[in-house]
Amino acid sequence: MNTQSVRELLQKVQSGEVALDTAVDLLKQLPVEDLGFANVDHHRALRQGLPEVVLGEAKTPEQIVGIATALLARSSNVLITRVEKEKAEAICESLPQLEYREAARVVASRDRRIDPLGNSPVAIVTAGTSDIPVAEEAAETLAACGASYERVFDVGVAGIHRVVRHIDLLQRTPVAIVVAGMEGALASVVGGLIGGPVIAVPTSVGYGTALGGFTALFGMLTGCASGVSVVNIDNGFGAAMAAFRILRHREPVA
Amino acid sequence: MNTQSVRELLQKVQSGEVALDTAVDLLKQLPVEDLGFANVDHHRALRQGLPEVVLGEAKTPEQIVGIATALLARSSNVLITRVEKEKAEAICESLPQLEYREAARVVASRDRRIDPLGNSPVAIVTAGTSDIPVAEEAAETLAACGASYERVFDVGVAGIHRVVRHIDLLQRTPVAIVVAGMEGALASVVGGLIGGPVIAVPTSVGYGTALGGFTALFGMLTGCASGVSVVNIDNGFGAAMAAFRILRHREPVA
Amino acid sequence: MNTQSVRELLQKVQSGEVALDTAVDLLKQLPVEDLGFANVDHHRALRQGLPEVVLGEAKTPEQIVGIATALLARSSNVLITRVEKEKAEAICESLPQLEYREAARVVASRDRRIDPLGNSPVAIVTAGTSDIPVAEEAAETLAACGASYERVFDVGVAGIHRVVRHIDLLQRTPVAIVVAGMEGALASVVGGLIGGPVIAVPTSVGYGTALGGFTALFGMLTGCASGVSVVNIDNGFGAAMAAFRILRHREPVA
Amino acid sequence: MNTQSVRELLQKVQSGEVALDTAVDLLKQLPVEDLGFANVDHHRALRQGLPEVVLGEAKTPEQIVGIATALLARSSNVLITRVEKEKAEAICESLPQLEYREAARVVASRDRRIDPLGNSPVAIVTAGTSDIPVAEEAAETLAACGASYERVFDVGVAGIHRVVRHIDLLQRTPVAIVVAGMEGALASVVGGLIGGPVIAVPTSVGYGTALGGFTALFGMLTGCASGVSVVNIDNGFGAAMAAFRILRHREPVA
Amino acid sequence: MNTQSVRELLQKVQSGEVALDTAVDLLKQLPVEDLGFANVDHHRALRQGLPEVVLGEAKTPEQIVGIATALLARSSNVLITRVEKEKAEAICESLPQLEYREAARVVASRDRRIDPLGNSPVAIVTAGTSDIPVAEEAAETLAACGASYERVFDVGVAGIHRVVRHIDLLQRTPVAIVVAGMEGALASVVGGLIGGPVIAVPTSVGYGTALGGFTALFGMLTGCASGVSVVNIDNGFGAAMAAFRILRHREPVA
Amino acid sequence: MNTQSVRELLQKVQSGEVALDTAVDLLKQLPVEDLGFANVDHHRALRQGLPEVVLGEAKTPEQIVGIATALLARSSNVLITRVEKEKAEAICESLPQLEYREAARVVASRDRRIDPLGNSPVAIVTAGTSDIPVAEEAAETLAACGASYERVFDVGVAGIHRVVRHIDLLQRTPVAIVVAGMEGALASVVGGLIGGPVIAVPTSVGYGTALGGFTALFGMLTGCASGVSVVNIDNGFGAAMAAFRILRHREPVA
Amino acid sequence: MNTQSVRELLQKVQSGEVALDTAVDLLKQLPVEDLGFANVDHHRALRQGLPEVVLGEAKTPEQIVGIATALLARSSNVLITRVEKEKAEAICESLPQLEYREAARVVASRDRRIDPLGNSPVAIVTAGTSDIPVAEEAAETLAACGASYERVFDVGVAGIHRVVRHIDLLQRTPVAIVVAGMEGALASVVGGLIGGPVIAVPTSVGYGTALGGFTALFGMLTGCASGVSVVNIDNGFGAAMAAFRILRHREPVA
Amino acid sequence: MNTQSVRELLQKVQSGEVALDTAVDLLKQLPVEDLGFANVDHHRALRQGLPEVVLGEAKTPEQIVGIATALLARSSNVLITRVEKEKAEAICESLPQLEYREAARVVASRDRRIDPLGNSPVAIVTAGTSDIPVAEEAAETLAACGASYERVFDVGVAGIHRVVRHIDLLQRTPVAIVVAGMEGALASVVGGLIGGPVIAVPTSVGYGTALGGFTALFGMLTGCASGVSVVNIDNGFGAAMAAFRILRHREPVA
Repeated sequence: MNTQSVRELLQKVQSGEVALDTAVDLLKQLPVEDLGFANVDHHRALRQGLPEVVLGEAKTPEQIVGIATALLARSSNVLITRVEKEKAEAICESLPQLEYREAARVVASRDRRIDPLGNSPVAIVTAGTSDIPVAEEAAETLAACGASYERVFDVGVAGIHRVVRHIDLLQRTPVAIVVAGMEGALASVVGGLIGGPVIAVPTSVGYGTALGGFTALFGMLTGCASGVSVVNIDNGFGAAMAAFRILRHREPVA
Repeated sequence: MNTQSVRELLQKVQSGEVALDTAVDLLKQLPVEDLGFANVDHHRALRQGLPEVVLGEAKTPEQIVGIATALLARSSNVLITRVEKEKAEAICESLPQLEYREAARVVASRDRRIDPLGNSPVAIVTAGTSDIPVAEEAAETLAACGASYERVFDVGVAGIHRVVRHIDLLQRTPVAIVVAGMEGALASVVGGLIGGPVIAVPTSVGYGTALGGFTALFGMLTGCASGVSVVNIDNGFGAAMAAFRILRHREPVA
Repeated sequence: MNTQSVRELLQKVQSGEVALDTAVDLLKQLPVEDLGFANVDHHRALRQGLPEVVLGEAKTPEQIVGIATALLARSSNVLITRVEKEKAEAICESLPQLEYREAARVVASRDRRIDPLGNSPVAIVTAGTSDIPVAEEAAETLAACGASYERVFDVGVAGIHRVVRHIDLLQRTPVAIVVAGMEGALASVVGGLIGGPVIAVPTSVGYGTALGGFTALFGMLTGCASGVSVVNIDNGFGAAMAAFRILRHREPVA
Repeated sequence: MNTQSVRELLQKVQSGEVALDTAVDLLKQLPVEDLGFANVDHHRALRQGLPEVVLGEAKTPEQIVGIATALLARSSNVLITRVEKEKAEAICESLPQLEYREAARVVASRDRRIDPLGNSPVAIVTAGTSDIPVAEEAAETLAACGASYERVFDVGVAGIHRVVRHIDLLQRTPVAIVVAGMEGALASVVGGLIGGPVIAVPTSVGYGTALGGFTALFGMLTGCASGVSVVNIDNGFGAAMAAFRILRHREPVA
Repeated sequence: MNTQSVRELLQKVQSGEVALDTAVDLLKQLPVEDLGFANVDHHRALRQGLPEVVLGEAKTPEQIVGIATALLARSSNVLITRVEKEKAEAICESLPQLEYREAARVVASRDRRIDPLGNSPVAIVTAGTSDIPVAEEAAETLAACGASYERVFDVGVAGIHRVVRHIDLLQRTPVAIVVAGMEGALASVVGGLIGGPVIAVPTSVGYGTALGGFTALFGMLTGCASGVSVVNIDNGFGAAMAAFRILRHREPVA
Repeated sequence: MNTQSVRELLQKVQSGEVALDTAVDLLKQLPVEDLGFANVDHHRALRQGLPEVVLGEAKTPEQIVGIATALLARSSNVLITRVEKEKAEAICESLPQLEYREAARVVASRDRRIDPLGNSPVAIVTAGTSDIPVAEEAAETLAACGASYERVFDVGVAGIHRVVRHIDLLQRTPVAIVVAGMEGALASVVGGLIGGPVIAVPTSVGYGTALGGFTALFGMLTGCASGVSVVNIDNGFGAAMAAFRILRHREPVA
Repeated sequence: MNTQSVRELLQKVQSGEVALDTAVDLLKQLPVEDLGFANVDHHRALRQGLPEVVLGEAKTPEQIVGIATALLARSSNVLITRVEKEKAEAICESLPQLEYREAARVVASRDRRIDPLGNSPVAIVTAGTSDIPVAEEAAETLAACGASYERVFDVGVAGIHRVVRHIDLLQRTPVAIVVAGMEGALASVVGGLIGGPVIAVPTSVGYGTALGGFTALFGMLTGCASGVSVVNIDNGFGAAMAAFRILRHREPVA
Repeated sequence: MNTQSVRELLQKVQSGEVALDTAVDLLKQLPVEDLGFANVDHHRALRQGLPEVVLGEAKTPEQIVGIATALLARSSNVLITRVEKEKAEAICESLPQLEYREAARVVASRDRRIDPLGNSPVAIVTAGTSDIPVAEEAAETLAACGASYERVFDVGVAGIHRVVRHIDLLQRTPVAIVVAGMEGALASVVGGLIGGPVIAVPTSVGYGTALGGFTALFGMLTGCASGVSVVNIDNGFGAAMAAFRILRHREPVA
């Protein structure tokens, strides 16, 4: 309910078209409704072309099928993250309009209608091959948002020349997503090479002192390149959403 | 050294203007120099109008004066962060072109020439009054970068209506910086209200289970609003730099 | 053994009805017995209509059947918490007077006779759908105590308007149980909205920096709404018991 | 703004007493205002006779005097917690209507007008003498809320008979606050002795494996008496507020 | 090799019975041999009637059978700790002179010849039923050492009167082993009731803030009864050995 | 109150010497009184010749003087631990019957009458010179208990031969106290050399990964010599009390 | 590309043998190429006779076979670490030129041509039998590098004489690798016995306070023998590579 | 005592020159003496030209002067680490043969006679200027050992080209010491550039998630360049000793 609809309601009260009690009832719900409205409005804008996302982890195939069926009723663009292969097959058998993208461990709509954002490609950079599933989750999320991206995989710190080789792409990207486990130093290296936004994703790759991703997380947060920001461990989806928040606001408002 | 200057050097070798040994020496430095050049170039671009920043913490006044004197020789825009009052006074006495901004605990150039970025104001949001020094550090850093900003202070989660009051500013801001200690939940609330980029800064405000800022940090990283990204505890400077990375790339390339 | 029975015993000693040695033996047990009596008394009062509770986790079906058989001999109201489905089926097959409530992962008496407490409903509030099993454990425990409750599920912080919609129920509830994982911020929000008792239950929902529930736990403890108190991670049973301690004392002593 | 005032506004619109545009403006602010109103209303109710509380820690005497002066303008009942002696003396010199209660490290109004809650005394129980400052902070907070209380100090677990001696008081109290450091076991002991609400406050008393209060905190949360709930380390104020939330709701609504 | 045997060797050198080179070789090994001898001697003494102990955890049945076969060749008293049922059955099938004691998760010699130590029974006290396997491991270890013991099970802190009931046994025991998980407070209670040695064993019983036994461990170490000492989490074997170290030294040297 | 006194009371009831009501009152207090009696009795036994101990840390000189004055009224044997020099001087000036033992950071009675225990000396072993204050605290506590001891200082693991040199003393000691920081390995070495009781005290000596004593603590608990038990970090007093618990029980009961 | 090849290129430019544009293109790639070249060169040197190493953990047999096939095309010396038996069998069935070394959990080339380094044997020392797999991983890595080694297994701290027995080997070794779990003290003991390089490997052997290898890690880092350096938990491969870095540099450069 | 001296002793026993009892006494001390001898011998070798080192931290000036006086009596080469300026001045005033090297926070002998090792310079590399004190401690330790070194300071990861510029020195160094705080990634970068030994020293530089050096420590241990080994946080002395262990063994034995 916006200014215009409030004005119209008041006019109807003035004209007697709406009874006083009815108007009071309608307005009594305003605090919540309007706040909800604001959010819904924002969400609607936010969701324009956005996937309906479900965290698949720790849900049974039955639960996911139930939720996905409901979502598919209102959207052609559904994305289910963190789904193991076996579970994915059970889901896709029930809902043939979905398909499994194994590298990213996501189930996504087979035919989705998304307006492309028209952005320069987001650079998705990984340190090692084990970081790829998280990077692919970011890639699939960007794809489901209509954003283009480019992969720069396996360019970790111990072979620093490999990342330098991609400097042109990195300096042109509207936002770089850097995915790295173990010490997570690649985020600082990329942050030092480029001036644009860098979103770092620590991964749980490694053992012992890798601490399941916390060493990468802490290293990225305390890294020496200013202005690198970080999302949760293994959270490729979150990194893509952080990138999408930046991309959407780059669009001319006109 | 770019393509053009390499071509010119080779032409001079061809023409005999430059001796072979001299050229070899020049080119031998290329791997580093050129890499350096790339970085320097990037840095030069990055630094256009940027402050020369010094982390003041754990340095003596003498050390800071020494470094600042060197920086002031090449820039009118120096920023020294994390400086306690007493130390700041010693510095400003030696270098009267600097002044102390106590609320932000920074020493900055009195007269600096900065081209304004012309951005819509960055919203700097804090949960409580104790988060203000970190927020002011972000504000001073943005100011030193030529970026405009607006303060939305003291709008923490327990009085949720206070943040809602600023929804217009928040929905227009090109990037929101959310500064919060204790549980750090304000980042999720703001991330749920707006669709643009949100940079969260956990602060070390609180005691006991606040864990010196780690509870806020972990809460922000695991928060339920997608795409909020986070910087180190109390790192107002880093949040401003993350915002600046976004702002710079919003500028039309033309 | 209370004052009256001690007096009677002494009278019997005086009258010779009880031999001195017998009385000494009886009284020798007093320190413990009486203390035990106090406790038993308190326990008896406490247990009036209360379930006999068994923590099912880490016990074999055989062990649980053994314990439950003993308990069923003296109570119609048995509650076994944290029971996986397969284990539950084995138990219920042996003891048909029990049934499995899967959503709460509890096995409970099919027919139990409980005097209702007659309280206004306890509000059980959850942030997300994954918090529901813990909330249902609280609900089943309250039910087994004769307390009424109402579910307010899936009203997490990123959509703050959803919790506001239930403000009437929340402000009337004698005690609110707030169940939330990840950052756990919902406890502060509810604590800020209402003036009555709030018991917060952190859940192990989330990954990475959610730290298996510790981030929610620490966030709830350091949250900005005064007077919210907290129980162990995933401890829906404990939250219900904390609520029951409050409800029982609300009853007029008459 | 409540139903009645909305109705009156609409009537004035109907009667032409208030212009349509003015009404729209007033109602446009409703979402926030009304939400604010709800909170304010709740807060007003909550604050009836409640102290205005300031966390004195990490604030300068000047800052506290400034805040306290503002608060004293609208309330005779101000409470400033966590104030060291020297700081307190500076404050009380500026504001002679305040006085320092050293044992609780609080500064409080000398003459405050509080309606007594009329409750049976809250039992404040401590394990050792070092826990007393936290207990006194709880006591002063209760006093400032108009609640009565009784001290049961120095009854720690290693001398279990000492707590048993106070069993009558404990079983009659509407809510027990148990303050203990080191292993924090007293909370379980009290929780086992009584059936009413128990709020446990871990303290930072101890060294080495006491972990600054975390061992007590974790012990209290995992303790074997069901339904004990816990607040942050050293948070005597929070425990008193949790007790007050219970006490207020015990009052007959009539 | 002791003083006497060195003297005899030297006499044989003097008498020519042993060649100089042979003696040098024998003595060259002395530093190690003798040190080894000291240890072996000590070990022999220590092992008089002691079981040969194998940590069964993380070994395959084949590995354990191999080791046990070797040990059975030189001892009738073999003890294998931390063996799951299935593994135990495989072992006992191969080595019928061994049998599985399931409650303690140990495999032990069926017929062993142990000189009884003749001690008053060691009290083995547990807080809850889940602590029993660890307590039984201690019991089996004591039995294999020839020490007598008595079980005092399920006397946790929330029902403090239960432990008081056993005060006579506790005050007579030469050493008490207290086994408790969760908050581990039983160690302090027992330590406060008796004046003799108390060995506390934290167990990994509990969830969430029980921290897999660390809360019990830290609580026991910081507990308020002086002179309670602690062994590793779940280490019933170690507690029994600590008790045995005390028992052996209590024997009159004569 | 023991069996005999209960019998006498009953006889007096029988004879009419004590009124029924008086007897009921006396017996009503039994649960607590008797339990208290048991404890007091035990405590009296425990305290025979034992020091009255005060933890001086975190108490003001005034507080300590107050407590010590009270204790000196009933005992000639007072021990105040963890007292810094300056504080100690203030105390000893007020109470000239006390003196400061700086090496142990304790204040103790100048003239105390203690019955010697007559034990073989307790070996107090330290790894490095920085562990000495903790060792001296143990030594002073033993002295105040009437126990004899011998120092074996500075025999850390990196020079293993140094501890071997004291093997005779170590093998004869009724109990060894091993004080070590950093890795804490000395406890295992001593535990491997001797068969008697070993109490290990981790110290907070070291930096970085020494973790303020936790590395030593964890190392001692997981060490490879069976039956070594451990007390809290820097807790020399606790180690001495654990030794004293063993020594007292070694005395012939006769 | 080195000085000589740059000089030759310039000469060809001078002589017209190479076109200016071609030379520019070649030189434009220099920054990266040359840096890459430097690394490749270094890597080539480093790899002379070195195994191509794959971390087998968390890869499927199919993935490993794919990678190994590629590596076998260019090297006869392939090493795959951290491979469980079942996985290894699948790999070796596909690639019969590989074989499984179960004790070290590695798959390695059956016939590899390695120039022996000709070093004195590296001493690989373990504390217990459970540390052997990590030690064997180090052994296999050294073997694959052409380095000789000798095993000194099962010489833990509690039987210190066992390590002393091998003092000759230890004092002659060019570098000692010490593998130990639990408290990890063996590293200090060896570091105290010898003057040459010591590389310590903490293992995840142990339970409870062994903290999955962190207690050993921290103990080794804070150990009292100067100059012992440490690698990640269970990282036998890394320790061997650290040794190999030392061995290669010991070779006369000639 | 070596083989030869044992043989001579036996000959003297044979010849009667030494009495049997005397020989027994001498030999009885062998186990320790000889072991001690081995160590002493090794230590003597190890110490040839080595500084006598004292950890100055947590010692009073008086204590240090006492220890240093004793050491100066037998060595011209004394090194006292971790000494603050004020303390150093007090020491040097008492012992004018010592001088303070402020950058390294060490006190060292003014005139020491050290045989130079004749090694190629050890490269000491730091990431930032704040790491320099730790690097200087390493430098001073190397100097006191007679080893030459070269500083490569302030070449952190965010400006990767700076370290590349020193590649020649790094590839020639017999061992590189890499000193870095915050994320500690420089160790991996250097480890990837060179094939020789790399000793990494994490520093406590940084705040928040730098965790006082633990993030750098864990990052270095889990870093992606194989064979980098690590010492304790801020342990410049230990890194130099690890380097010295390598350098000594590089010397031709001849």
